[in-house]
Amino acid sequence: MQWLRYCFKQLGFAMLCAGSVRAKNTMNIMLTNVLDAATGSLFYYLFGFALAFGSPSNGFVGRHFFGLEKYPSPSGDYSFFLYQWSFAIAAAGITSGSIAERTQFVAYLIYSSFLTGLVYPIVSHWFWSTDGWASPVREGHLLFGSGVIDFAGSGVVHMVGGIAGLWGALVEGPRMGRFDGDGKPVLLRGHSGTLVVLGTFLLWFGWYGFNPGSFLSILKTYEHTNYSSYYGQWSAIGRTAVTTTIAGSSAALTTLFGKRLLTGHWNVTDVCNGLLGGFAAITGGCSVVDPWAAIICGFIAAWVLIGCNKLAEMLKYDDPLEAAQLHGGCGAWGIIFTALFAKKDYVNEIYPGKPGRPHGLLMGGGARLLAAHLIQILVVIGWVSVTMGSVFWLLKVFGLLRISADEEMAGLDVTSHGGLAYAYHDENNDQSEKNSFPIANMDGSNA
Amino acid sequence: MQWLRYCFKQLGFAMLCAGSVRAKNTMNIMLTNVLDAATGSLFYYLFGFALAFGSPSNGFVGRHFFGLEKYPSPSGDYSFFLYQWSFAIAAAGITSGSIAERTQFVAYLIYSSFLTGLVYPIVSHWFWSTDGWASPVREGHLLFGSGVIDFAGSGVVHMVGGIAGLWGALVEGPRMGRFDGDGKPVLLRGHSGTLVVLGTFLLWFGWYGFNPGSFLSILKTYEHTNYSSYYGQWSAIGRTAVTTTIAGSSAALTTLFGKRLLTGHWNVTDVCNGLLGGFAAITGGCSVVDPWAAIICGFIAAWVLIGCNKLAEMLKYDDPLEAAQLHGGCGAWGIIFTALFAKKDYVNEIYPGKPGRPHGLLMGGGARLLAAHLIQILVVIGWVSVTMGSVFWLLKVFGLLRISADEEMAGLDVTSHGGLAYAYHDENNDQSEKNSFPIANMDGSNA
Amino acid sequence: MQWLRYCFKQLGFAMLCAGSVRAKNTMNIMLTNVLDAATGSLFYYLFGFALAFGSPSNGFVGRHFFGLEKYPSPSGDYSFFLYQWSFAIAAAGITSGSIAERTQFVAYLIYSSFLTGLVYPIVSHWFWSTDGWASPVREGHLLFGSGVIDFAGSGVVHMVGGIAGLWGALVEGPRMGRFDGDGKPVLLRGHSGTLVVLGTFLLWFGWYGFNPGSFLSILKTYEHTNYSSYYGQWSAIGRTAVTTTIAGSSAALTTLFGKRLLTGHWNVTDVCNGLLGGFAAITGGCSVVDPWAAIICGFIAAWVLIGCNKLAEMLKYDDPLEAAQLHGGCGAWGIIFTALFAKKDYVNEIYPGKPGRPHGLLMGGGARLLAAHLIQILVVIGWVSVTMGSVFWLLKVFGLLRISADEEMAGLDVTSHGGLAYAYHDENNDQSEKNSFPIANMDGSNA
Repeated sequence: MQWLRYCFKQLGFAMLCAGSVRAKNTMNIMLTNVLDAATGSLFYYLFGFALAFGSPSNGFVGRHFFGLEKYPSPSGDYSFFLYQWSFAIAAAGITSGSIAERTQFVAYLIYSSFLTGLVYPIVSHWFWSTDGWASPVREGHLLFGSGVIDFAGSGVVHMVGGIAGLWGALVEGPRMGRFDGDGKPVLLRGHSGTLVVLGTFLLWFGWYGFNPGSFLSILKTYEHTNYSSYYGQWSAIGRTAVTTTIAGSSAALTTLFGKRLLTGHWNVTDVCNGLLGGFAAITGGCSVVDPWAAIICGFIAAWVLIGCNKLAEMLKYDDPLEAAQLHGGCGAWGIIFTALFAKKDYVNEIYPGKPGRPHGLLMGGGARLLAAHLIQILVVIGWVSVTMGSVFWLLKVFGLLRISADEEMAGLDVTSHGGLAYAYHDENNDQSEKNSFPIANMDGSNA
Repeated sequence: MQWLRYCFKQLGFAMLCAGSVRAKNTMNIMLTNVLDAATGSLFYYLFGFALAFGSPSNGFVGRHFFGLEKYPSPSGDYSFFLYQWSFAIAAAGITSGSIAERTQFVAYLIYSSFLTGLVYPIVSHWFWSTDGWASPVREGHLLFGSGVIDFAGSGVVHMVGGIAGLWGALVEGPRMGRFDGDGKPVLLRGHSGTLVVLGTFLLWFGWYGFNPGSFLSILKTYEHTNYSSYYGQWSAIGRTAVTTTIAGSSAALTTLFGKRLLTGHWNVTDVCNGLLGGFAAITGGCSVVDPWAAIICGFIAAWVLIGCNKLAEMLKYDDPLEAAQLHGGCGAWGIIFTALFAKKDYVNEIYPGKPGRPHGLLMGGGARLLAAHLIQILVVIGWVSVTMGSVFWLLKVFGLLRISADEEMAGLDVTSHGGLAYAYHDENNDQSEKNSFPIANMDGSNA
Repeated sequence: MQWLRYCFKQLGFAMLCAGSVRAKNTMNIMLTNVLDAATGSLFYYLFGFALAFGSPSNGFVGRHFFGLEKYPSPSGDYSFFLYQWSFAIAAAGITSGSIAERTQFVAYLIYSSFLTGLVYPIVSHWFWSTDGWASPVREGHLLFGSGVIDFAGSGVVHMVGGIAGLWGALVEGPRMGRFDGDGKPVLLRGHSGTLVVLGTFLLWFGWYGFNPGSFLSILKTYEHTNYSSYYGQWSAIGRTAVTTTIAGSSAALTTLFGKRLLTGHWNVTDVCNGLLGGFAAITGGCSVVDPWAAIICGFIAAWVLIGCNKLAEMLKYDDPLEAAQLHGGCGAWGIIFTALFAKKDYVNEIYPGKPGRPHGLLMGGGARLLAAHLIQILVVIGWVSVTMGSVFWLLKVFGLLRISADEEMAGLDVTSHGGLAYAYHDENNDQSEKNSFPIANMDGSNA
């Protein structure tokens, strides 16, 4: 039951998002996170899983197991379904961060149904199904003789969620007040650093679920696999966790000192985002690189994120969770990183039965893996832009996307959700309340 | 070590309860949650486990293993004990929600000792022990040839906790201000929506522990079991998790749109409660129904909860956590649901060795399972009402139940626990503090 | 992947620390907790693991596997590394609590590198490596024919972290305002009881990871082990979890009633600390004592903590998290407790192959185990005092330890971390904000 741990990713997203928005939109963003999971569950159950893993297929889209009909089958069980479901709702969660604080509630329901029911599943079919045209375990012809090594989804999950978020945030435009009259960026601080840290740690733990857990799942899809020894497999699971840990740590420390140089203080939120950027980057290659390479992965991921954030400010792009920068940017870096540093022995251990298959360019494995990975970046950007860009554009055209300026000023919790998230002061007999009205008496004595 | 995950239920309850009460009672409710676990551990260790699983018994109450003497035995190990312990403290946690914000601290210690040490264990003996008179795995005579299928406790845990809470809240009466002079209900909003969502997610994950985890535990109690294949078992664990996920999602979405129609806004807290209601309902039958049936289970659970809440308002019943409505109401629905939708193949897979045993009424399995399940509802209501009703009534008679009106106005944290839970403003040099007293200067300029 | 659960200890520490400090230092302490993990990961990867488990060694310090070179080896895999890594960052986390609210950021980076990279690893080599001079599984000569039974680190982890914290807090001196002009202690309340409870529960779950999980890990280090049966092992894992649960519960209830007698109210924070004290004490002997002994362990741990706290106030020692008292004091008690109550059968089960080895003094096992354990207490105090005492003293000499008085008054979040952790009130259109300025209108009507 590996997939259970991935649930922490969902909770982590909810808490991270809640802490990163202003207090007046807290209930709104948490509700969207609860519903990502609920809506995603139903749509992935009804359509998504079939499109993703309904083999045999034509290589582009699956076509069996709608509503889990005739499932479990010899090719997979319920655990595999749950595992894949948890990836699908993670992608939808990433996107929700980009459009926070200014989006109509109904838009979340529509985009997340579309993303978990159609757009994400088809991408995961391409790279993770045994039939997918770019799968590294396809029978017969492999793309560039290699296929794409995207172990736990730097591209399939993170780039998909990030690019979808990018289009959402672009179509909506920035939040009111995010850029002042002169176009200078204004920091709209989240309301709780504690929730940001809580969410980050939960995501950290969830990542161990996604990364090492991917083994058990992906093993199910290899009928032709014949592992030489159990030892190699187990060792690979451990290695995956070590590379994940080290990449995150390296990115966090790089961000800490990098931002200290740039801004003059030690910033918690930035360190949290740096850590997550390191994780997003190592996700694709975590099983096929050495721990020392993970240090490089995290180091560069931190600078990719800092750079993307600079660029976003210059272009007046507003993404409250930095989701497009973090998951899109660092995810893309992770895809390239894998193509550079994948080690021969590990690639053959994880994807056995094809000796001589390509590995990382800098490890002497030639450029074919890099070519396949560049293709992955291009097709993910293309497919998600066309589909999700259209969805957000249509939502805008029909007036279903952005809330009114009045609602945005008042905050969504008051206008749509029946009240604010917090009530620290009760009406009566609250000591601290008394302390906060010292003037009442003074004013009374005026009379 | 499946039982570890159930710990999250305890934390989830603590956070859900904390967020659902007013700020002035936060420390109080969290302390009761910590002590539920601590007191429950000791009493379940000393008495409860023996009463529940001290086989051989007379079918009504166990009589071995007090203080874990001569345990582990061939019939079970420490893991089984821990697993059952986690269920016991969950039941006590449910009840604590119903009586929040108006109960003396000592009353919690007394009722929770009684519930985890005596009342709950005896119910669990009836339905979960191999000797229990209504157990589905009893040697020899089965109730209506079937016994009760309450896989992970819609009745044993949720109804027991909910009915106990019902009596507690009835005996205490509503909180001050919950109904105004004309008897109209007044919403006493909890102080933190964030904690409500955090608690709900943690409970969600904990539920996966309870439901699929029940397998490993219950397997221990079947000495006569001879599974045809490991595959069937593993598949059933996954199915359990899928039905749980889908029932919760279905209930959450039903609540979202149902309450939107009724109240005009999208309410996070209601969605959280709806989700939990769906879980409470599917708990009993999660292993023996198909995923499509789980959609129905969740859909109706949402309306059961909405209906129970309407009824509670009409009857001026005040339950700060909606615990009686949610766990009692949806739990009872879950018991009936199982008797209607249990599938023949799955029942024989989970409870093997008795071909031809009854299954769900709507699945062509006859009415005997339904008869057994109606008996379960009646005996749970009867036993818990007599025992826990008496406990709460005696506590009231001896003046140990309700706090004074002054204490209730002031809040329990100040009167009993040494201070408020939160201190966001320090005395000195706090910027936001400065900003919140702009009038001081204005008033000064008046002089 | 047992080690995953230990991650919850890190999150638990972060939340417990955050809740226990004043609001103005929240971001600071959380950042140190994130960086404990990140820095600790890198330094333990580069140096610590090699010093701790780089066998064969001279018994005092390991010398292989720097940067995980030539690792995994036949003696261990990546899981073992991750498991030990999680212990190392736990020790550093303990220390951070003692010096909270008054320490320069750079001091955290330096001390935690030193602690996780050098001081802690060497202690763990002595007691946990198969080569360690005081290891209970050493080939050949055992200390007093026994070695030290410190199963999951009452001494190796908790005392090390606690003593390091003691020196940090002693060298720094108390926080401003902690003792008034007359030397009387002033309570500097933490800013959120909710976070304290959240952190405590997460630590609780993490403890199950550390304690029962220690089996899988320690098994790896015994090449010469030949368990008679799988059953014994599995039963021992369960027993470990039961003793941990009961010791914590016993300590929590003892603290509840003890503090009620002493202070007149039921205090949540004290109960949380008592619970953790019980856990710290049982950690060393959890696998070799009976559940009834765990009740005694927790009972005395609660009084040890209360006593240490009294002593600390008398000596004007200020430790915001009570870390030295809790982890140092209760950890030391746990070491003695094990030497008194370790049961013969269990000792032989866990450390097999040497029949007749010493066990607990009160269980008829003689005084040799106690002698070994007293040696452990002395060498841990000695080694950590010399090394970490020097580190903190040097940091002070170089002016890198304590922040300025102005910074301490203003709070670290504003001076070093770019702003406060919380922003519950937005600038515009926030209803509760409006309500908190009722005077604005009244004042206007004055004009």
